[in-house]
Amino acid sequence: MNTIDIKSYMQSVGQEARAASRLVAKADTAAKNRALTAMAQAIRRDEALLLAANAKDLDNARAKGLEASMIDRLTLSAKGVATMAEGLLQIAALADPVGEISGLNYRPSGIQVGKMRVPLGVIGIIYEARPNVTADAAGLCLKAGNAAILRGGSEAIHSNQAIAACVKEGLRSAGLPESAVQVIETTDRAAVGELITMKDFVDVIVPRGGKGLIERIANEARIPVIKHLDGVCHVYIDDQADFDKAIRIADNAKTQRYGTCNTMETLLIHEGIVEKILPALSKIYFDKGVELRGDAAARGIVAQIKEATEQDWYEEYLAPILSIRVVDGLDQAIDHITKYGSQHTDAIVTENYTHARRFLREVDSSSVMVNTTTRFADGFEYGLGAEIGISTDKIHARGPVGLEGLTSQKFIVLGDGQLRQ
Amino acid sequence: MNTIDIKSYMQSVGQEARAASRLVAKADTAAKNRALTAMAQAIRRDEALLLAANAKDLDNARAKGLEASMIDRLTLSAKGVATMAEGLLQIAALADPVGEISGLNYRPSGIQVGKMRVPLGVIGIIYEARPNVTADAAGLCLKAGNAAILRGGSEAIHSNQAIAACVKEGLRSAGLPESAVQVIETTDRAAVGELITMKDFVDVIVPRGGKGLIERIANEARIPVIKHLDGVCHVYIDDQADFDKAIRIADNAKTQRYGTCNTMETLLIHEGIVEKILPALSKIYFDKGVELRGDAAARGIVAQIKEATEQDWYEEYLAPILSIRVVDGLDQAIDHITKYGSQHTDAIVTENYTHARRFLREVDSSSVMVNTTTRFADGFEYGLGAEIGISTDKIHARGPVGLEGLTSQKFIVLGDGQLRQ
Repeated sequence: MNTIDIKSYMQSVGQEARAASRLVAKADTAAKNRALTAMAQAIRRDEALLLAANAKDLDNARAKGLEASMIDRLTLSAKGVATMAEGLLQIAALADPVGEISGLNYRPSGIQVGKMRVPLGVIGIIYEARPNVTADAAGLCLKAGNAAILRGGSEAIHSNQAIAACVKEGLRSAGLPESAVQVIETTDRAAVGELITMKDFVDVIVPRGGKGLIERIANEARIPVIKHLDGVCHVYIDDQADFDKAIRIADNAKTQRYGTCNTMETLLIHEGIVEKILPALSKIYFDKGVELRGDAAARGIVAQIKEATEQDWYEEYLAPILSIRVVDGLDQAIDHITKYGSQHTDAIVTENYTHARRFLREVDSSSVMVNTTTRFADGFEYGLGAEIGISTDKIHARGPVGLEGLTSQKFIVLGDGQLRQ
Repeated sequence: MNTIDIKSYMQSVGQEARAASRLVAKADTAAKNRALTAMAQAIRRDEALLLAANAKDLDNARAKGLEASMIDRLTLSAKGVATMAEGLLQIAALADPVGEISGLNYRPSGIQVGKMRVPLGVIGIIYEARPNVTADAAGLCLKAGNAAILRGGSEAIHSNQAIAACVKEGLRSAGLPESAVQVIETTDRAAVGELITMKDFVDVIVPRGGKGLIERIANEARIPVIKHLDGVCHVYIDDQADFDKAIRIADNAKTQRYGTCNTMETLLIHEGIVEKILPALSKIYFDKGVELRGDAAARGIVAQIKEATEQDWYEEYLAPILSIRVVDGLDQAIDHITKYGSQHTDAIVTENYTHARRFLREVDSSSVMVNTTTRFADGFEYGLGAEIGISTDKIHARGPVGLEGLTSQKFIVLGDGQLRQ
């Protein structure tokens, strides 16, 4: 398609999405759940088709010489197909957020005022290699009563189209409009430019992928963006921490998985406990092949720790590397997190009530934790059922974004003829 | 100031606001209330000073030949000064939203997950003539734990500076940083351009004023904007409406005040009741000097009704003018509101349970009402205590925006050493 074709193509996609969004907003819970269940069944039935489509994408990716990590994210296994179907059934099992009425109270005027949860309208989702996002995002947007426009990575186009066919079959079988979920058919980047500026047809954009993609979209979008940037997560071991809890949490937060956004990247240790705990912790990390980079105080205690540069405190390693800093107390720990952190997820390990209470209030991150691991920052672990992503923004949605983050609330007012005087 | 000076001036304003926001976010409720009370006292004490400063602005405005409506909005009376002080005391009396913890529940993993309400950070408010916004906005932002950067209209610069002096005195006397509320000192428009693009220092922009100002800011901002565009509000009189309620509500929604955004601009009447109710309603409107513009069906019943053009259905008159359309039922009424409305406030008058329930669910406006007047769409009437504006957006805040709309929520997680497996 040339640029003009793409513009008109995207405009028609937008118009269809807007029209469909009105119908799914009204759709009853049973119809949405029927569609989600049918999508899951179609995906299981078409496992061979999906894997064949994915193989085509993988061949092209290898031919293009894409890097291993990209190939890894792009790869769809039989287990991956089953997980996609399972995810859709889990979304069907979640309570329907649409229409929930809260805080309906009588006012002195005699009117009752409350809020009703409503869909956002049309959600534009822009993502990279992972094909499973196509099913997850479609399911979440539908359950929240929204229409979705999905723009996956060009390298996953065959996989995404195959999954989209199952999604549309599910919508059709439940009597819902197929255009409630549209997967962009062109791999032309101009389509993204259109998607993030079609104010009349798209209500919110959710980019998922590398920081580069997300920053570019956030800068160019003319529509609100729910975004996730870095995850520079901290654990602060207070001088009044329980020794064993501190060891277990600092270990789990770093080594349970290295590549995730909620993995600890910097460990802050109170000077009052560092001599006691750092040697034991370092041994655990070294045994697991984790490279440690510390400040002078840390290196004074464990010689094998390399020197940390100023840049290390800003770094999201997403790798078996950990920076370690010794602090003189809670204030210095909070100041460090405020200066170098990314407002994603930060934890304190302490038995001190006042320190815990202050950390919870004063650390301005999307998830703030006491005596547990940053790795818990996750939609499933939080009971949201599923997540479309984790927001490091403050507006609208913060932290893991599930069904509720894909909705809004309107005021409802019930009266018996009351008038404004 | 030249452009470079303005850039560096705004950057320093932003830096100070960011620093102050960290302190007011931590400030306890008592300190914030002391500051609000002291602001109110200073404003009452300085009534003469404020009126003198306002007189200077009014002289300049008249010299510039500004239109009467602008002069009216700019004018500060003794009563206006008292109302400003009263407003600040009312905000002091509101519950502190900061730190409120909700939905703290145990998860199967053993962790407790909930949400804590937190300030947004730095709020940029851009407004036009009304000087009272300076005190209202400063009070609301402070109570919600935010720093505020206020940019009032150049025509109100002396009034705003005088009010700002009282605000700063209140902050000082409560031991809070004066830079928690900063009023931009230059009237240069370039300052606005800086304010709405200083991503690092400003978290959200709230424009208040004419549609032109708000659209310009929404288009140029690089920061989330909580905005209010038109208020094309509807009342739909169903065929199963109570006759007397319908008359009273349709009268009040239009004639209680003409210039407000929640005033009804279009009246929709079911064909089954129109012959009975339109003559009586028209008499009320004509007696109050309201010009009526209707479709053919309406004009067929009341000859004095002028012809409505297609454009009339989109019109926010803000004047004693009302467009009237006859519809064949609930679906046509909802379709009309969906096509021509501004998603602000819409009401149905009916005794039919199913029609009321469908209207509440299917009309996608920030306030949806049954059997009462659109004029109730207001922060005070809703019990928010005060409002910084009414949002016609769907993201973050919708409808009247009070303290809660100036906050966000972070997740808090409490554990006893639980780990991710």
